Amino acid sequence: MTKGLDVWFREVHKDGIAVGVRVTGYPYSAQTPFQRIDVIDTALLGKTLLLDGVFMLTDKDEFIYHDMLVHIPMFTHPEPRSVLIVGGGDGGSVREVVRHPSVERIEMVELDRMVVEACRKHFPALTCALDDPRLTIHYADGIEFVKGKREAYDVILVDSTDPIGPAIGLFSESFYADCHKALKPGGVLTAQIGSPFFDAPEIKQILGNMAASFPIALPYTASVPTYPGGYWCFGIGSKGPDPRKRPSRERYEAVSGKFLYYNPEIHEASFVLPNYFREALEG
Amino acid sequence: MTKGLDVWFREVHKDGIAVGVRVTGYPYSAQTPFQRIDVIDTALLGKTLLLDGVFMLTDKDEFIYHDMLVHIPMFTHPEPRSVLIVGGGDGGSVREVVRHPSVERIEMVELDRMVVEACRKHFPALTCALDDPRLTIHYADGIEFVKGKREAYDVILVDSTDPIGPAIGLFSESFYADCHKALKPGGVLTAQIGSPFFDAPEIKQILGNMAASFPIALPYTASVPTYPGGYWCFGIGSKGPDPRKRPSRERYEAVSGKFLYYNPEIHEASFVLPNYFREALEG
Repeated sequence: MTKGLDVWFREVHKDGIAVGVRVTGYPYSAQTPFQRIDVIDTALLGKTLLLDGVFMLTDKDEFIYHDMLVHIPMFTHPEPRSVLIVGGGDGGSVREVVRHPSVERIEMVELDRMVVEACRKHFPALTCALDDPRLTIHYADGIEFVKGKREAYDVILVDSTDPIGPAIGLFSESFYADCHKALKPGGVLTAQIGSPFFDAPEIKQILGNMAASFPIALPYTASVPTYPGGYWCFGIGSKGPDPRKRPSRERYEAVSGKFLYYNPEIHEASFVLPNYFREALEG
Repeated sequence: MTKGLDVWFREVHKDGIAVGVRVTGYPYSAQTPFQRIDVIDTALLGKTLLLDGVFMLTDKDEFIYHDMLVHIPMFTHPEPRSVLIVGGGDGGSVREVVRHPSVERIEMVELDRMVVEACRKHFPALTCALDDPRLTIHYADGIEFVKGKREAYDVILVDSTDPIGPAIGLFSESFYADCHKALKPGGVLTAQIGSPFFDAPEIKQILGNMAASFPIALPYTASVPTYPGGYWCFGIGSKGPDPRKRPSRERYEAVSGKFLYYNPEIHEASFVLPNYFREALEG
């Protein structure tokens, strides 16, 4: 495939809206027992990972999703020592978690070993922390893994695909109940849960599932260019700390490395919702 | 064109990213002396207006753009009585301006009479205020119209197409200088200026053009699903009042009708920028 051809991939959402990227190469494609994995080269966004034909991440914009999935709960918890990542085989969430100095132990439970292998090869900037000595990777089903765990983690990150296909159980009331039990007192969970503009009814349902176990269950948002509509919702469940509170400047500066999207002001602003979304969640 | 056909329109930005919509009808197309106008029916977003093949608005998401272009400056000014709209032939900005009880006089200077005519026919929910007795429509070039005006307006809204094609002069230092002179003391101007993710260098240039005349020139953002990247930047220039300050609850509630996107918390949050965009504007 030469760069000169006008080749495009598009992800269609709700049979009516699409995000398209111009494709300059197609280095990897595999069907695993769980899903289809594709890696494409794009003109504007670098290498791009697709699972079942849906954008997971691009080299250029993955920092937005990972900053907002990881740092909102990590700063909500006063001192996260033990973290569980459900999914996250691309390594981006681990890379962000290890920047927090309080972290002692990370477990990642990924269903599909081939996601990790494909990403180690094609996304070195994402997988750079997968050999961190604090990390244990389990290749297993996240739902089964969490069942029976008791007060084992400070933070759980549900870094999964969308609530269709193999990940559907990761958005259910029973899974969130199991996560609640698996979290220590004061523990916090986050998940990516859809487009405020196109998926508000589904988001309302998922937040309701979360609220059945967590005394605090709130939506927050970020602008991710390759997700349909460009505006994405995350849900955070907390056993205690208020997620809307920004971290102190001292704590923010104690985290190693550079924040490309997140800052303490964005932390607070991400919980401010436009009226149409507020009303869709209340109505 | 029947609904069953898999027909799509896409707008391509920077030769690498696209927003696509499924098309269920194509009721209007015209080439005017200034630009091409198209109206399409879409599966998810209702009727959609394209100028020179670029998304201007859809029935379903136009409220976001219009709320944020209009209400941020209208609430920044303590008591806007006279408003100039440059462009805005679809009527959406007028519809939002007339909701503010202090407004006595509105002038709209639209280059292309056929935009107004097409929108009166196809977008009745947008053009509903175009017969308001406080409004005068001038069919003329906005740049020429503003030249020589002195302290005539409290608010100027530059509701134009992108800085390519016929609208390019509306982003220039000399145009902003003329607008500055056309504004009364304490006056405020806004314009839509591009995608933070894909157009940061152009946005930096445009904000610099604005800052050459205005003592305060700031970016703010909103999430618009049909604009490339789904995240859009506006620029606000102020001769005095601080645009970042939210209105009082009393003033917010004194505006007639319903806000679908805007609220006082969104006002403040829209000025909070992610690190990558902050740094691109400073760097």
